Formats: sequence, structure tokens, C-alpha cells
Amino acid sequence: MNSYDIVIVGGGPAGLTASIYAVRANMKTLVLDKLAPGGQIINTNEIANYTGFGVINGAELAIKMFEHSQEAGAEFEYKTVLAIRDEGAVKKVICEEEGTVYEARAVIIATGTRPRRLGVPGEEAHAGAGISWCAVCDGAQYRGKDVVVIGGGNSAVEESIYLAGIVNKLTVVTMFDLTADPSACDKLRAMPNVTVYPYQDILEFLGTDKLEGVRFKSTKEDAVERTVSCDGVFEYIGLEPTAGFCADLGILDRTGCIVTDAAMCTSRPGIFAAGDIIVKGLRQVATACGDGAIAANSASKYVESLRG
Amino acid sequence: MNSYDIVIVGGGPAGLTASIYAVRANMKTLVLDKLAPGGQIINTNEIANYTGFGVINGAELAIKMFEHSQEAGAEFEYKTVLAIRDEGAVKKVICEEEGTVYEARAVIIATGTRPRRLGVPGEEAHAGAGISWCAVCDGAQYRGKDVVVIGGGNSAVEESIYLAGIVNKLTVVTMFDLTADPSACDKLRAMPNVTVYPYQDILEFLGTDKLEGVRFKSTKEDAVERTVSCDGVFEYIGLEPTAGFCADLGILDRTGCIVTDAAMCTSRPGIFAAGDIIVKGLRQVATACGDGAIAANSASKYVESLRG
Repeated sequence: MNSYDIVIVGGGPAGLTASIYAVRANMKTLVLDKLAPGGQIINTNEIANYTGFGVINGAELAIKMFEHSQEAGAEFEYKTVLAIRDEGAVKKVICEEEGTVYEARAVIIATGTRPRRLGVPGEEAHAGAGISWCAVCDGAQYRGKDVVVIGGGNSAVEESIYLAGIVNKLTVVTMFDLTADPSACDKLRAMPNVTVYPYQDILEFLGTDKLEGVRFKSTKEDAVERTVSCDGVFEYIGLEPTAGFCADLGILDRTGCIVTDAAMCTSRPGIFAAGDIIVKGLRQVATACGDGAIAANSASKYVESLRG
Repeated sequence: MNSYDIVIVGGGPAGLTASIYAVRANMKTLVLDKLAPGGQIINTNEIANYTGFGVINGAELAIKMFEHSQEAGAEFEYKTVLAIRDEGAVKKVICEEEGTVYEARAVIIATGTRPRRLGVPGEEAHAGAGISWCAVCDGAQYRGKDVVVIGGGNSAVEESIYLAGIVNKLTVVTMFDLTADPSACDKLRAMPNVTVYPYQDILEFLGTDKLEGVRFKSTKEDAVERTVSCDGVFEYIGLEPTAGFCADLGILDRTGCIVTDAAMCTSRPGIFAAGDIIVKGLRQVATACGDGAIAANSASKYVESLRG
């Protein structure tokens, strides 16, 4: 009963798309997610760049994607996956709930990432409305407004350069110095509307209904406190991949993301991955769906090859 | 007036998605297409695997995507592009119409491919309803039915194996012998519901309202004619890429598709490509949109770097 052709771990855009493709390839398909289907988009107020939908609420898009998967014929279970055991032609998907184990010929991992958070006062209150983790998604809202970017690594600096082309005034606040590629750092520092404050601790986000600013404090001896007014904040202090449960498969890179080839195959036959959890350059709903289609196509062909 | 940050050649899912991302990155963006926007999907009756839409008519999806691009703020012109001239930091996009030339800092080529057609009687009448060029798109319609695949190369054989897992009886008719990878050919030949007819010329497709069968004739001395009844036909006799207009840029592979890296960059700085026209493994609406997002992101960063 608990045996499937393809088990998909993670029910965001990548996993749901994979499920549609898998069912259409005649695969008995199960999607597992510990939370409601939709992944990160559930917490996104406005999605304006998933082609064909114009501007849509994230939770609404999540429901449409889930319904599409259900109509196609995929099964869905609320389960927390603890481990995947690779027994060659059979993979065992071990869940937390009452020791449930699913058997699959192929597994697609599409568990996504979570942006790391600072955990300072005001962050929770403004998350998703004032504080964003995606410049490509939300930058256009801040055309001509003032924005703060928090972080100094490659993502922070690249997204700052991107945002500086859109917004009025950009302030970059980082815990150490800028640590991105030197040419990118030089470019950012040279932009006329950018101010960088290195070696700072973020203390809190200000504003009640609406985000109004950021308060931070120098980690140097002077310990100067500053408050910068702004309309929006973008945090780039790292991603937390959610593939720890399959660390023992040897398919993760040093950041904890899953390494795949262009066909979404990992180094283990029968184990595929798609969406934000893979090592990639741009994490978007559109790219996640593309990955999901490719992963399910590869997984279906793999399952078919086992029958051969 | 004819100067843009980003000019996108081709208004299918890849090009329209790229336009949404480019505008949102504050790029002055123009999409060019010689036909109505939407690309190949305009001619597709049912699209059932673009996540979130359930089952939708191709032309209807095309309109939604076009409206989304327009609402985002992209410009669109009906123009046939004859050539792209790479003058370094400026690219000139030369159109057929009254010698129109657009200047761009970056160009994204998203002109897609056309499936090659046989050109035999009955093909035109059943195209898109009975005759399909995409097993992943339309195979699910033929669950338990009889299907003919035309072609013997890698795509034909791979898609035949895929279809044989879905349909009742599969007949493969090819002009020469099967020329795909030997292991795939062996696998296909061994499938219990598959019959292969090599060295055949397709004569015509039968049926008036509904496709009813295929008539073909041996190219060997016996010249035997056969008719196979079927509910659907899939033609896999090659793709015709539509990037001939930029052959002189040196970015095409030997099949005429554009070679890109994972960031959708070609070997020429400032020239990007996305969607079916690039060298890739799976050509779908979802993958085209993913490519378009990536291409526009890369192109926007490139244009930003020119300003630096």
C-alpha cells in the first residue's frame, strides 16, 4: 500500500510541478510535506513574476498549484521525512509519524531553503511586508524609495547593486566588511546612492504598522548607534537549506544544498532534486517549476528503465 | 527612441517571462515577435502541465502571459528580426520592416523551435488534434489507446519508450532503421506492446473529423503498403530551430540551437538566450519560463555592469 513509483519530498512549486509531470508519465506518485503545500510562497504576499498570473497572492497561487496536482492525480500526505534509505532499486522514505515508511522506485527531493533570519525585535512583525528576502521578487515595489540591505556576502552585494538601480537611497549594513568578490564590492561602493556601514550589529526594526527604519550599533570600540529610515529591508545573511535529513546520502555540497546535473539527477541513481534546494543561481517560482518538470521527466525515465 | 536596455527576440513563454523580469529590474524592455505572442502554445489545444492553471487552452494561456508582460510594462512590436549586430556595448537588432533597427545594451534570443513536419496528406488537418509533436505534453490523452510514433532517432525512441508505458499498442514507423542509442533501441524493441516498421515512407494520415490511422509503404524492394489504425500520432522527425538569423554570431551548435551556460549566457557578452531555442534536454512551457527568468536576471546584471 505504501509503495509508489515516485515519492516527492516537498510540496512547493518544484514538488507540485514534478507531481503533475510524474502522474502524466503514468507514475504512481506521492507528495510529502510537513506543512501546507506551496512552500515559501505561502508566506509571500504578492507574487508578480509567475508568468500568466499577473499579480497574485502567494497562498492563492499555492492553492491553485495544489489543486492542479490533485486533479492530475497525485497523492499528498502531511508527513515529516526523517531520512531516505537508498537500497538500490528501492528507496525507503522514513517519516516521523508513527514510523511510516514509503517505498519508491525514485525519489525527488524538493524541500527548498529557508532564508536565515536575524532574530531581532521587529523582524517577525514586518516579515513579508517591509522585510523581504528576495530583491528580484520584491525590489520593484521600492522604486524611488529608500531601502536597507543587511549582509555583505556575494548575494548581499549582488542584490544591492541590483536594488541600487531601482531605489532612491540604498544603505548596506553588514556584520563584518563586504566579503563578496572585490570587483562587485568596488562597484557597489562607487554607486552614488549607496552607503555601506560595515562591522555593525542589527539591534531592531522600527515602526508599528509599517516598517520605518533599522537601528544598528558598531561592533568597533566606538560602539556608535545609528538609525536609518527606510521603506523596506532586504536581508541577505544566508540560506538555510532543508536537506539535512538526507545528509548521509552524500549528495549535498558544503552549503547543504543538493548537487544535480542539468537533468536534476544527483550522484545517486534514482534520487533526483529540484527547486530552491539544489545548487543554482536564481531561486524563483518559475525556475522551481522548470526544475520540477525536468526532475519528474528524468525520474519517470529512470523508473521505466528499471522495468526494462 | 529605438533604444532599449534589453530587446527580447521572440514572444513565447520564455520571451514573455524574460520581459516581466527585465521590466521589474528597471530595464527599458522591448519584445519582438513576427507573429502573435505566445509562440508554439498558440497552436496547442490543451496545456495541462503549466503548474497552477490545471487544463488550459494554449491560446488562452498565451493571452494571459502577454497581458502579464504588458501590465508589467514591457513594450511589444510585431517585427521580423533579420539579424543581430554585435557592436560590443551596443547590439543592433535589424528588422525586416522598413529597415527598422533597434539598439539594445543586451539581447535575449527566445525564438523557439518548430517541429519538422512530413508534409503528407492529412497532416495539416489533424495537426494539434490527433497528431502531436510532444509526448510529455499530450501522451496522457492516449492512456489505453493505440498510438503511432514516426521517427527513429534518439527523441523518437525515448518518447516511444515513454509512450509505450502509457498507451495500449504502440507502432513505430521510421524512414531508416532505429538510429538511437543501441540500448534504448533494444529496450523499445523488447517492450511487449511495441511494433517497429523500419524503412518506410509515410504516405498519408487517414480520417476526416478524427484521426483514424496512418498509411505507409516499405522503401525496400517489396514496396509493401500497410495501414495501421490508431487514435494518435507523435511525429519525431527533428526540430527546426529558428535562430538562423543569428548564425553569424557564432553561438549556434551544429543542430542550429543556441549554446548557453546555466545562466543563459551565450559565448558573446550581452547576448543571452532562453527557451526551446537553446541546447537542452526538455522543452516545456515550465522550463521555458524558468529559462526566461534566468536570462533576464543575467541580462539585467550585465546591463547594470555596463553602467558601472
